[in-house]
Amino acid sequence: MTAGRGRRYERMHLSDMKGYTPGTQPGAASIKLNTNENPFPPSPKVMAALANVSARALQRYPDPIASGFREAAANLHHVPLDQIIATNGGDELLRLALTTYVDPGRAIGVVTPGYGVYSVLSHIHQAPLSPVPLQEDWTLPSSATDQWNDDGAQLVILTNPHAPSGTLFPFDVVERVAANFSGVLLIDEAYVDFVEPALRYDTTALASRYPNILLLRTLSKGYSLAGIRLAYGLGCSKLIAPMLEKTKDSYNIDAIAQQLGRVALEDRAYACLCWQQVLQERRRLTSGLEELGFKVERSQANFVLASPPRHSPSNARELKDKLQDRDIYTRWFDEQELHDRLRISIGTSDENIALLTALRDLTCAASEAESDWQSGEHYT
Amino acid sequence: MTAGRGRRYERMHLSDMKGYTPGTQPGAASIKLNTNENPFPPSPKVMAALANVSARALQRYPDPIASGFREAAANLHHVPLDQIIATNGGDELLRLALTTYVDPGRAIGVVTPGYGVYSVLSHIHQAPLSPVPLQEDWTLPSSATDQWNDDGAQLVILTNPHAPSGTLFPFDVVERVAANFSGVLLIDEAYVDFVEPALRYDTTALASRYPNILLLRTLSKGYSLAGIRLAYGLGCSKLIAPMLEKTKDSYNIDAIAQQLGRVALEDRAYACLCWQQVLQERRRLTSGLEELGFKVERSQANFVLASPPRHSPSNARELKDKLQDRDIYTRWFDEQELHDRLRISIGTSDENIALLTALRDLTCAASEAESDWQSGEHYT
Repeated sequence: MTAGRGRRYERMHLSDMKGYTPGTQPGAASIKLNTNENPFPPSPKVMAALANVSARALQRYPDPIASGFREAAANLHHVPLDQIIATNGGDELLRLALTTYVDPGRAIGVVTPGYGVYSVLSHIHQAPLSPVPLQEDWTLPSSATDQWNDDGAQLVILTNPHAPSGTLFPFDVVERVAANFSGVLLIDEAYVDFVEPALRYDTTALASRYPNILLLRTLSKGYSLAGIRLAYGLGCSKLIAPMLEKTKDSYNIDAIAQQLGRVALEDRAYACLCWQQVLQERRRLTSGLEELGFKVERSQANFVLASPPRHSPSNARELKDKLQDRDIYTRWFDEQELHDRLRISIGTSDENIALLTALRDLTCAASEAESDWQSGEHYT
Repeated sequence: MTAGRGRRYERMHLSDMKGYTPGTQPGAASIKLNTNENPFPPSPKVMAALANVSARALQRYPDPIASGFREAAANLHHVPLDQIIATNGGDELLRLALTTYVDPGRAIGVVTPGYGVYSVLSHIHQAPLSPVPLQEDWTLPSSATDQWNDDGAQLVILTNPHAPSGTLFPFDVVERVAANFSGVLLIDEAYVDFVEPALRYDTTALASRYPNILLLRTLSKGYSLAGIRLAYGLGCSKLIAPMLEKTKDSYNIDAIAQQLGRVALEDRAYACLCWQQVLQERRRLTSGLEELGFKVERSQANFVLASPPRHSPSNARELKDKLQDRDIYTRWFDEQELHDRLRISIGTSDENIALLTALRDLTCAASEAESDWQSGEHYT
């Protein structure tokens, strides 16, 4: 009676793919510098709003288009409401962009190395990547847009600040891509809140001027709300409408996230204080790593990408494991260009000091041990 | 410089489609019988868990595979953990089933009339529907599975209890479809918690026995948690794994929903009390409507589908509008088979009495007014 017990029902192109592997989620006591969360808690006003969530808000369906939250985002960026869509984390906006703008078989432009989710989405959607390798100094080759146009890409995803390097593509580079690319340019600004204010990097005006720019903003990092899954897209209303009215799931944002997200955006003063502290810690952590002999990329994000010193007895992967033995979590990527690097989220002052202390131990003490070894003292 | 201001970037097949229209979400004071929420608040234990959500839970990424919540679901149904996937409402599971099991161009079997989201998803995915019209008495034609197989359907979605009629396809009918259909049978059991226990309808054992059965369960209705967007799929691990490991967004369930959902499932005693009250109210509402001359389908869900009496001066659509003028919300669907019917969610005792009182006014008082008119008394 049973219909082919051993049969696989999943689609052919999925059977050999591997999904995205998120960073480890260790216990609460760990020093967690592996998934780029904000080291500071959310605004006290967000916690107060949480305490005020009513039973009725849980019982009833939420506003399907998250109007209150979108209003807060629209006010923040001085754009009309119809230029904003709320999404269940940035991942949903990325997926919706593929669903809405990319025909299967057509290309998606990306830079490499990059965020692993892009290639997973490309595989699921059967829309091949058109990858442009970044140059040695993490800049975009001038031929990138031509390649994407020649490959017939309908969507380009540009992470800015870039991950995992943390470097920022300058405003004029981004604008040039938008002007010359024939499809939709999604700028994944997950880390934009951590850009030095002195650089005056702000693409929101561009997004109203260019009909093909879609900005991704998230509350996961800048607003310390990774747990509630809330992000938003900002672009011309013609770009936003098909996602808002057609392709998103009908009630994609839960009632609590809508309420908390609104309060978080409205308490931007608190968020700004957190960003300032992260920037200060980023400078300190960068110096500290450089003092230990690490090579550190110039980051505008809430993480740094660092290569261990030549004299280190452990390579990047080994350091990641040894740090983990001490309950300090960092991220290492099994990609060739990244093999000799660690991505380290900016923690609190205490967390960063603990990390530096451990790294000093692991790179210097061990190299002493190595000298000991070489001098034969271990032969007893 | 700007790239084609008036240009549309959305994919061709989306440009002429209309998205799903959710029921109106009126103000809190309204009597809301239009979107099938549970009329009772969530368990007090859920509210206590909400009060205990920590800042850290908001700050950090949630468990990407919602292990704690899935454990509670697995325990409830006595299945292994790998037979459960948690989704952001039932809508996400429906979408994932298309993404994972249906190639664009291949068919999706459904019955008509049915839940509007199915056809929206079919349009987005470019997988045409293979619709089987239900018979007059809402039963499934015996030829249904043959049609679906002949149309090359890779997925059948069967809502059971059926919406919007509320009727239940018997267990053996469902099993026969599973045994004879060559693709995946998704049984959308959004309303299953409201089936008369005496009927002993329970497909969870079937889902372990047939490798092609995927059950959809939601906390929106049975557990009074529509606001937190939480549902789950239950099926053989080979059906679940590709969605859990590959096609779902990487952090699809927020931290709060994971915590609250677990507590809700574990406090099944409270939920059962709510279901019993809904069943009691369903009997009372059905009798009350029938006394007014409405024809009411035999519902096993938390709503009834009712046709106004012949003598009613207002048709179903007009009644919906006139009820709304009195701040009572019901649902009317602009589909031919449903034109003369109202779908009414089961409310609290007070809400149902208010509805019946209003309907008595609107169907009887108005018919008196009509008699007055006919007797010429309005000519003055």
